[in-house]
Amino acid sequence: MSEERDGRELDAMGVLDGVVVGVLGGTGAQGRGLALRWASAGIPVVLGSRDAARAEVAAKEVAHLVTAAGFDGARVSGADNASCAAQSTVVLAAVPWDGHGELLESLAPELEGKVLIDCVNPIGFGKTGPFPLEVAEGSAAQQAQAVLPGSRVVGAFHNVSAVVLADLSQMEVDTDVLVVGEERDDVELVQALADAIPGVRGLFGGRLVNAGQVEKLTANLIAINRRHQTHAGIRITGRGL
Amino acid sequence: MSEERDGRELDAMGVLDGVVVGVLGGTGAQGRGLALRWASAGIPVVLGSRDAARAEVAAKEVAHLVTAAGFDGARVSGADNASCAAQSTVVLAAVPWDGHGELLESLAPELEGKVLIDCVNPIGFGKTGPFPLEVAEGSAAQQAQAVLPGSRVVGAFHNVSAVVLADLSQMEVDTDVLVVGEERDDVELVQALADAIPGVRGLFGGRLVNAGQVEKLTANLIAINRRHQTHAGIRITGRGL
Repeated sequence: MSEERDGRELDAMGVLDGVVVGVLGGTGAQGRGLALRWASAGIPVVLGSRDAARAEVAAKEVAHLVTAAGFDGARVSGADNASCAAQSTVVLAAVPWDGHGELLESLAPELEGKVLIDCVNPIGFGKTGPFPLEVAEGSAAQQAQAVLPGSRVVGAFHNVSAVVLADLSQMEVDTDVLVVGEERDDVELVQALADAIPGVRGLFGGRLVNAGQVEKLTANLIAINRRHQTHAGIRITGRGL
Repeated sequence: MSEERDGRELDAMGVLDGVVVGVLGGTGAQGRGLALRWASAGIPVVLGSRDAARAEVAAKEVAHLVTAAGFDGARVSGADNASCAAQSTVVLAAVPWDGHGELLESLAPELEGKVLIDCVNPIGFGKTGPFPLEVAEGSAAQQAQAVLPGSRVVGAFHNVSAVVLADLSQMEVDTDVLVVGEERDDVELVQALADAIPGVRGLFGGRLVNAGQVEKLTANLIAINRRHQTHAGIRITGRGL
């Protein structure tokens, strides 16, 4: 098991040669948590925010945490969202659902020709708990693809707990990442970004049309978190996986 | 681990005292597979079908398989759907999505006052694989609740592989069952029906409004099955679970 894991991490690093990951919404919990883990794995990360100064502060904090946890050579910088997208080879959208489409549309020139990873969960909260929001395009990822016709959108990292990501004392993150997308190379790139986080396994989870239920499943996980005071993730079981 | 499991199975059997499970669509793969596992656990099962004679044949086959696998005292019978619902204390709808609402509506008198478990997955298949179907009510489970105002609908057993269920040589079924519903007692009853199957754990997964994504997630699992030649299931991870 440990050797398999090492093998997967090594393979991941091959696919990731030369990759620079931009994180739109890099000052939020999910983006920051993923940035922390990628920087710990030695992957260069650019945190993006509407406010470049806030992004630079967050980048310094992430770099400090990575170093404090004993990882060498963290490469983390901060920039405004447009510059973050322009500087990166692959970009994660970890922004609030409110304004998601408008923000991405405004970055279409910087995202042109790139893989845009969408991890946004359209979820509301009512008296009886979380519930999925209706999305005209079917999902946040499909909305992103609709406003970014020049980019290739892949959905992933929806069900990974930001709390667990932020806690580097939990070395292994016990979850699979379902990766939904159209192009095999793009899916494999994003799987490699998942595999680069210890404990995490990236799995192809179908075409982009299947993004919605992965996004909305986060509502079920939040219900589980509330009932059991935990930070739930998912694993896919099955012989040979 | 094994002792915990035994404890959960024993608890499950307490909640299940006096329970008779009806399985609408009991001659289909999912209904038949679950019936096989419940009968193996000593729970009385009534298989339902449009055609009573077909249900009776299926019931004999299930009873035979249970006995052949070394379990004593299988109590399995077959009946037409209305009689199946009338004879049972809790009823599983394992019917095709096509005609789902009409069938359940026609059984409203027999299902009155009972828990109706819905495991139906509204999924289509196209050139590039499986995809979720739009459901006006949001999900099959919500559609069931809409046509059965006198019953209490709980969603569960969506993501359990019928192939694995049918294979009694795989004693343990390596999956969690997300149980979505409104009433705690009903959810606990259905969790107990999940826990009664070795290896399976029933987990509260939120209110009924969160049924849709659990149903549709089966499309992602089918995509995984095709890519990896497996029969995928899910587990929920998290400290304390």
